[in-house]
Amino acid sequence: MSDNISISVNETIQHIQICRADKMNAFTDEMYQSVATALKKSHKADGIKVNLISGVPGCFTAGNDISDFYTYAEKGNFSPGIIDFLTTLGTLDMPLILAIDGPAIGIGTTMAFHADLVYATPEAIFATPFADLGLTPEAASSYLMPKTMGHARAYEMLALGEKYSAKDACRAGFVNKIIPSDELISHSLNIAKKLSKKPESSLLATKQLLKTEQEYILTVMEKEVEIFTKQLQSKEAKAAFSSFLNKTK
Amino acid sequence: MSDNISISVNETIQHIQICRADKMNAFTDEMYQSVATALKKSHKADGIKVNLISGVPGCFTAGNDISDFYTYAEKGNFSPGIIDFLTTLGTLDMPLILAIDGPAIGIGTTMAFHADLVYATPEAIFATPFADLGLTPEAASSYLMPKTMGHARAYEMLALGEKYSAKDACRAGFVNKIIPSDELISHSLNIAKKLSKKPESSLLATKQLLKTEQEYILTVMEKEVEIFTKQLQSKEAKAAFSSFLNKTK
Amino acid sequence: MSDNISISVNETIQHIQICRADKMNAFTDEMYQSVATALKKSHKADGIKVNLISGVPGCFTAGNDISDFYTYAEKGNFSPGIIDFLTTLGTLDMPLILAIDGPAIGIGTTMAFHADLVYATPEAIFATPFADLGLTPEAASSYLMPKTMGHARAYEMLALGEKYSAKDACRAGFVNKIIPSDELISHSLNIAKKLSKKPESSLLATKQLLKTEQEYILTVMEKEVEIFTKQLQSKEAKAAFSSFLNKTK
Repeated sequence: MSDNISISVNETIQHIQICRADKMNAFTDEMYQSVATALKKSHKADGIKVNLISGVPGCFTAGNDISDFYTYAEKGNFSPGIIDFLTTLGTLDMPLILAIDGPAIGIGTTMAFHADLVYATPEAIFATPFADLGLTPEAASSYLMPKTMGHARAYEMLALGEKYSAKDACRAGFVNKIIPSDELISHSLNIAKKLSKKPESSLLATKQLLKTEQEYILTVMEKEVEIFTKQLQSKEAKAAFSSFLNKTK
Repeated sequence: MSDNISISVNETIQHIQICRADKMNAFTDEMYQSVATALKKSHKADGIKVNLISGVPGCFTAGNDISDFYTYAEKGNFSPGIIDFLTTLGTLDMPLILAIDGPAIGIGTTMAFHADLVYATPEAIFATPFADLGLTPEAASSYLMPKTMGHARAYEMLALGEKYSAKDACRAGFVNKIIPSDELISHSLNIAKKLSKKPESSLLATKQLLKTEQEYILTVMEKEVEIFTKQLQSKEAKAAFSSFLNKTK
Repeated sequence: MSDNISISVNETIQHIQICRADKMNAFTDEMYQSVATALKKSHKADGIKVNLISGVPGCFTAGNDISDFYTYAEKGNFSPGIIDFLTTLGTLDMPLILAIDGPAIGIGTTMAFHADLVYATPEAIFATPFADLGLTPEAASSYLMPKTMGHARAYEMLALGEKYSAKDACRAGFVNKIIPSDELISHSLNIAKKLSKKPESSLLATKQLLKTEQEYILTVMEKEVEIFTKQLQSKEAKAAFSSFLNKTK
């Protein structure tokens, strides 16, 4: 269990908080594993009905920890946490709400396409600058982003690396509502509570009907991981990581 | 032929009006059957080129009649009208325009995803509060809603039960234009007329090219009906129907 | 090589300009062929990294040359240029940017759904009035338009023939940004330059992941061409072409 993931359960609502503020909430493998484990626990047996993921005030996540990327590049493959996290995202049957304030980079943006409801503050910034790091899309974003918002917008984010504001994201359909930052968590918890009061069999069956593509999503993720792993080892990726790590030393 | 469905044909335009104002235009099985029969008649042989469905001023439809839901729950299956209506919606080859003023609840919203053009007034309200009744999506909405507007918005309507205004619906892509209520019918009839003047072979071939998924849509509807029927008989659904019927006694 | 297509390569950016201002940049078969040939050349071997297509100030394209349509109708099939252009659009692995000012009619609109990034001026007008000419959708627009913006909007353009402004197109997701007309080309070239500096293997792999449906797109195009060719020979289409050609004599 990672120190950088804080988990609290209040009645039937599990709140998973990314808490690594000194590193802009960048995800280590251990952090992915902790989130995946918590999400997988959220089944009827455990009395959890709704999951909420948030960051800290002013920061959702800077994305994958770059020094971990560097290690993956050396080893030639990912650690198991990230794979477990992706698979869990793609197959979760319980409701998942995201509350996003500040930067939501890389996986911070791509996980939004798996969430059921996404609330963001006016300060939220979405970006997937994979190409700038010599990398490629992950988390089935190469399928889910064009499906949700059309090819031109998906390419604008995934290849050109343009930032989207909360308003842009709302317009593109992957954020539900913009909420002032001092109300973000209370609003999201209220919605979680509202959801948790609804007949559980309806909620589960509704999500199951909406998410009939789980198997395909997993296939896309696998193909993306294969290409991503190859890209990780490219000259361009290694140079981008070194440059980043030197800058932040 | 239901008294609550009024059908008029003017030149080549068939106007189907839902007229059960005292019950907020709630659909009975007989009403579904009448609409289905009228739509099915709209083929070249009958000289009908375009179909328009509207409600009464201030109300499109409150959705399925709740006392009918109660009966279905007792019997364990739907009456045939609703199934015929859904199948007809999913396979109609003639153009279908909706003119929506006031509430468009349940099937009132989900039928919009089958229509070719949808006009709504600033007073239109779209909602699919299936989960609040212990129910689940129908009319292939579990497939068509996320396809049209992304998963997060579809979940917001289908599971959380949030209301969408005409503006929200426009932004989400399932309403074409917002029209003042006193011009809604004349505008919609004008558009119907405009369509009816276009080469019929082009119109039919265009719709056929756009709707290549008919078979899949019918499969989704069947699966949804199966789950919906099970949910109808749940404790939560029966309690919701009883509570509603007591309130409106 | 058509006189009406001007091609310039600056460093790694190929700028393809439609230059037939006296005929509103209407496409002849030779012009399609020239654009297709240029796009196909844009592979690593040739040192081209990004393609940009623009029209002349105030006009992107009026669409297919109507007198060519008339000839196709007489012959009963297309000339090879258009088919080569469509196939190239559907299978291009290099980045493609469109810069659109003024009318973008027919293929001018439908090619936007194949581009990776689309910039348009406030004066841009998008329209696909196929039905008004007795014709039907092409360039896989019957699949890509509803996929990108939902059925109701696709039908509004493809069957009803409604014009979309740059703002409408932005909202519908097939234009990325609105750019003042005097900055359109410089902005688009800047973006092309920005893209061209990114790791090429990332760009290529990203587009490949985003465009997994190439085979299906080609199948749709083939089916559309078959129906379009039949419609070309219809009484209504021939009458529309004659009327147009008489007006512009």
